[in-house]
Amino acid sequence: MKIAVIMGSDSDFPVVEKGLKILKEFNVQADVRVLSAHRTPFKAIEFANNAEDMGYDLIIGAAGKAAHLPGVLAGVSVLPVIGLPIKSSTMDGLDSLLSIVQMPKGIPVATVAINGAENAALLAIQILSVKHEELREKLKQYRVEMAKQVEEKDQAVIELAKNVGCE
Amino acid sequence: MKIAVIMGSDSDFPVVEKGLKILKEFNVQADVRVLSAHRTPFKAIEFANNAEDMGYDLIIGAAGKAAHLPGVLAGVSVLPVIGLPIKSSTMDGLDSLLSIVQMPKGIPVATVAINGAENAALLAIQILSVKHEELREKLKQYRVEMAKQVEEKDQAVIELAKNVGCE
Amino acid sequence: MKIAVIMGSDSDFPVVEKGLKILKEFNVQADVRVLSAHRTPFKAIEFANNAEDMGYDLIIGAAGKAAHLPGVLAGVSVLPVIGLPIKSSTMDGLDSLLSIVQMPKGIPVATVAINGAENAALLAIQILSVKHEELREKLKQYRVEMAKQVEEKDQAVIELAKNVGCE
Amino acid sequence: MKIAVIMGSDSDFPVVEKGLKILKEFNVQADVRVLSAHRTPFKAIEFANNAEDMGYDLIIGAAGKAAHLPGVLAGVSVLPVIGLPIKSSTMDGLDSLLSIVQMPKGIPVATVAINGAENAALLAIQILSVKHEELREKLKQYRVEMAKQVEEKDQAVIELAKNVGCE
Amino acid sequence: MKIAVIMGSDSDFPVVEKGLKILKEFNVQADVRVLSAHRTPFKAIEFANNAEDMGYDLIIGAAGKAAHLPGVLAGVSVLPVIGLPIKSSTMDGLDSLLSIVQMPKGIPVATVAINGAENAALLAIQILSVKHEELREKLKQYRVEMAKQVEEKDQAVIELAKNVGCE
Amino acid sequence: MKIAVIMGSDSDFPVVEKGLKILKEFNVQADVRVLSAHRTPFKAIEFANNAEDMGYDLIIGAAGKAAHLPGVLAGVSVLPVIGLPIKSSTMDGLDSLLSIVQMPKGIPVATVAINGAENAALLAIQILSVKHEELREKLKQYRVEMAKQVEEKDQAVIELAKNVGCE
Amino acid sequence: MKIAVIMGSDSDFPVVEKGLKILKEFNVQADVRVLSAHRTPFKAIEFANNAEDMGYDLIIGAAGKAAHLPGVLAGVSVLPVIGLPIKSSTMDGLDSLLSIVQMPKGIPVATVAINGAENAALLAIQILSVKHEELREKLKQYRVEMAKQVEEKDQAVIELAKNVGCE
Amino acid sequence: MKIAVIMGSDSDFPVVEKGLKILKEFNVQADVRVLSAHRTPFKAIEFANNAEDMGYDLIIGAAGKAAHLPGVLAGVSVLPVIGLPIKSSTMDGLDSLLSIVQMPKGIPVATVAINGAENAALLAIQILSVKHEELREKLKQYRVEMAKQVEEKDQAVIELAKNVGCE
Repeated sequence: MKIAVIMGSDSDFPVVEKGLKILKEFNVQADVRVLSAHRTPFKAIEFANNAEDMGYDLIIGAAGKAAHLPGVLAGVSVLPVIGLPIKSSTMDGLDSLLSIVQMPKGIPVATVAINGAENAALLAIQILSVKHEELREKLKQYRVEMAKQVEEKDQAVIELAKNVGCE
Repeated sequence: MKIAVIMGSDSDFPVVEKGLKILKEFNVQADVRVLSAHRTPFKAIEFANNAEDMGYDLIIGAAGKAAHLPGVLAGVSVLPVIGLPIKSSTMDGLDSLLSIVQMPKGIPVATVAINGAENAALLAIQILSVKHEELREKLKQYRVEMAKQVEEKDQAVIELAKNVGCE
Repeated sequence: MKIAVIMGSDSDFPVVEKGLKILKEFNVQADVRVLSAHRTPFKAIEFANNAEDMGYDLIIGAAGKAAHLPGVLAGVSVLPVIGLPIKSSTMDGLDSLLSIVQMPKGIPVATVAINGAENAALLAIQILSVKHEELREKLKQYRVEMAKQVEEKDQAVIELAKNVGCE
Repeated sequence: MKIAVIMGSDSDFPVVEKGLKILKEFNVQADVRVLSAHRTPFKAIEFANNAEDMGYDLIIGAAGKAAHLPGVLAGVSVLPVIGLPIKSSTMDGLDSLLSIVQMPKGIPVATVAINGAENAALLAIQILSVKHEELREKLKQYRVEMAKQVEEKDQAVIELAKNVGCE
Repeated sequence: MKIAVIMGSDSDFPVVEKGLKILKEFNVQADVRVLSAHRTPFKAIEFANNAEDMGYDLIIGAAGKAAHLPGVLAGVSVLPVIGLPIKSSTMDGLDSLLSIVQMPKGIPVATVAINGAENAALLAIQILSVKHEELREKLKQYRVEMAKQVEEKDQAVIELAKNVGCE
Repeated sequence: MKIAVIMGSDSDFPVVEKGLKILKEFNVQADVRVLSAHRTPFKAIEFANNAEDMGYDLIIGAAGKAAHLPGVLAGVSVLPVIGLPIKSSTMDGLDSLLSIVQMPKGIPVATVAINGAENAALLAIQILSVKHEELREKLKQYRVEMAKQVEEKDQAVIELAKNVGCE
Repeated sequence: MKIAVIMGSDSDFPVVEKGLKILKEFNVQADVRVLSAHRTPFKAIEFANNAEDMGYDLIIGAAGKAAHLPGVLAGVSVLPVIGLPIKSSTMDGLDSLLSIVQMPKGIPVATVAINGAENAALLAIQILSVKHEELREKLKQYRVEMAKQVEEKDQAVIELAKNVGCE
Repeated sequence: MKIAVIMGSDSDFPVVEKGLKILKEFNVQADVRVLSAHRTPFKAIEFANNAEDMGYDLIIGAAGKAAHLPGVLAGVSVLPVIGLPIKSSTMDGLDSLLSIVQMPKGIPVATVAINGAENAALLAIQILSVKHEELREKLKQYRVEMAKQVEEKDQAVIELAKNVGCE
């Protein structure tokens, strides 16, 4: 059980990293690569073409602007491809979102929120959990923890609100 | 191996139907339901809460406008949820796309293109293929067919172009 | 006479706080909670389901990104629900605005401006004033004060303009 | 118990009419008027200024393009004002939505979906129900009916899906 | 010959000020006011209603968000109204631009660029120059100066380019 | 007293025509031309350069897509230039609106609503009325007529509403 | 001297055809192909990889939605690639425009207007004319013809305007 | 072999400069100028009109907001014109992108990404390489270097990922 996390540029790493930490937390092996659909197209395509044979179960593709990387990987490999749109310095991420999500009939990319690296990781884990039941149990535990944190914040905000005079 | 295809309104059916045909073609059992996150919230939530126990491997949620359905299902079930944004009479589908894809940290929805029902189905099949290898083989065959069709269209367009005088 | 102010994340508090101050000013009791439509869906739904019995007259729901919270609360409770879209780090608040305002037929959410917490509070007060006439009188007084402030700023700007040489 | 439904142009009537039917269904008296913020500004303002004295509990304002009407009414009256953005021939309703919802601090407009006349009516009823408990009971009944319709459509779609071969 | 410069909020002053300087430079008398279409509607309308009698030749209205001010002034006065959309903290000025420019048939507002206070002033001067020929001559001189500045910058950039190695 | 109405393409005529009728109604002489900023740039520029000498008081420029025409005319002539954005087959008029309104510092274009030809004409009349008082009187009469029409529609809608059962 | 016109789908042909007619008119040999970046990625890449050796001087790539084709071709070939965004059934062409034009540093695509097939062809001819002077002469002649047509339309519109009463 | 790089304002220089460095690297002579379509229209047009005679092979036009410059140059000269949209303080560059790319039939502008100065330069080089084969060889070498850098970043990111615990 392992996945590939491909980004189009090393400048995407600070965003992607947040997802890597979650994969680590779930003990999902993630191989991280910088492969550009435009600057190293043959490497990107070769990777996608071999991904299944290399034992990957799915691919996360992160890219900004005209974010072709996830779509290009998805066109070559039949593995599920998760697309992570990265916000760049113009257009507030709308360009990468539309470039990734609006795939033509036949080749889907499973798109998550702009800069939503944690969700790309969690979606990967959900997909793997179709096969690996232990991940599903961990996901349930993760959600219990997440709910607990919300509850703690609920308590904290109730206190904060008292300071404003709301009780 | 079966999936649930939930739509927020029966008016979504003509779009969703295109995906159902693909699921049928791949012999993936799909239970189709109309469950509204807003008009029948308890039924929607109850469904999501029981989906795993009912034997579903994943859920496709289709919805238009403030398309909360996929996100609501995803918040309740740990199964992978695919979000299919439906174009309604205003905003050209941008409202449903953003409502579905911009999920907060912790609860991903695997979003496909606006009205991209075929891709929602194909993504479901790709996810199932992580466990069911026979689907992966069928997917490869499907892509071969798809490529053949493109090649036939390539030939057809070459002929059409001759009529314009391009040779 | 009391209202519930629910936010999807404690990070929404600095925006929401501005509205709480106005509620305080009008002596409207406001219970403030963090309840996530996605991370604590059952708590959120349970709250909405009991809100009327708990004596709430209306609910303010604040959320960012795919801001499902107000719509989910509105689907469960028949109390009026005010939706407050919060601007997050991408899409300039357009995602939360569309996710909140574009509700389907049958379940309205009374949406205010992006980050418009003061207006969410004032709208709540206006709604309560349908029953509680004393609030209407206070609202009129509030507007008189507001107009006075505009008039003071009018005077101040006339002075500022003189510095530019406009008289 | 009565409300005012003001539209900026008679061309808005076909949309607004859907809301009037719901108000009729709930036996809420609705006085319907065409008053333009730009073409008959004094009439519009006079109306808003007298609305409370005339016995109105709230105002629905419907307008397209640079849809100033609801905001202008809200600036003059302290009654709750519901804004209904109407889609016109350009900009897909985004112009009227932003013109109505993005009100400045101090003067809220309770905005519903573009062309969402039914929801404007239902929101009005919810607001009135803060005072009039019988409306709240009717709202609950309305939602039960609405849920029933969804359930019938659920059944119908299950049948439709069988035709595609999904069972 | 005098004009009125009305802004919806004193927070618009730093933008508006750039236009005032140009009006000063052209010796056009400009009375500057803060009048809110929503917070001081009667004052705003009264001003517009008396503007012609007070001797104003035209009105500049500056406003942000749901920028109704210029349209409201234009609905009351037959004087030409120039609309200056102010960028606020969300939506990048698109909300105020659409609220100002998309006026309904019958009541135009002469809209300039977002935050384009200088151009609002220059447009005012151009309009006044229809009557006052001396302003037209000054405008021509202003453009000559402006062209000279561009030419100086042209020279400066040629030098800067040499540093990059372009000659 | 005469104005020039320049359009970038004869396909703009059906929209522009609605403004010409208003100009005719006000007895404002309007010379109508097709001059393209891109296909006949020298003619367009020559026209703008001579417009003042030819006795024009102002120019209306209508254009779609990358609607440069009004800005180009405004860069050459110091006459007031009104920009009329025309909706073309893509982008819902947003492209022409932004291309016309977002003029740089120094050269304003007085922009009206997308396809708002009547308002371009009325704005032209308002500008001319700065010099020609008789136009201002006609404008007031025009507004009285317009208000009367709204009042008739008000009556008509009150009747329509009765049919729905609202009285 | 020959060029390749590649489209992602045969459904793009009716738009592309308008450009082919212009290429024919200029006697530029154009080979027309359907090659999908997603459905036949290897064929697309192989074509781009061999394009220079096959004697092509440049490539036009036409595509809709997540229009990756031009960018993918540009990443493989050093020939100039012209990108032609095709409007599909949602998002009014904005998705394909952003997907094509927002290319990352290093790999440009020369983008033309949405559905602007004629301009893609004319740009191709302009690029070829850098080497082939006879094309530049033809371009000048083409522009003379185009200007003549505008002048004829100018005359036609002057007549049309007379019917409205503008003279 | 030389090109002209024209910008509408000297404030565009910091963006444009990045492209100049690439032109320098390829030994392409670039004459850099500030010529405004609006503030120095005759100079801009004169330049475009003489550009071919002055020996330029193509023109790069950079501009922000209502970025008419590239289109105006393209309307006058038959040389290929590359349009570089500059992001200004509002609208995130969308205004300049649409103003540049949405050119009408007949006059194309080869548009690159918002602030994509490097790509404007590389596209210029690609266009010149149609005639000058040595540039094509340099372009291939440039891409080899670029690919090498991606590979180095690939290695660097693999190391970074190890720190997160991904191996």
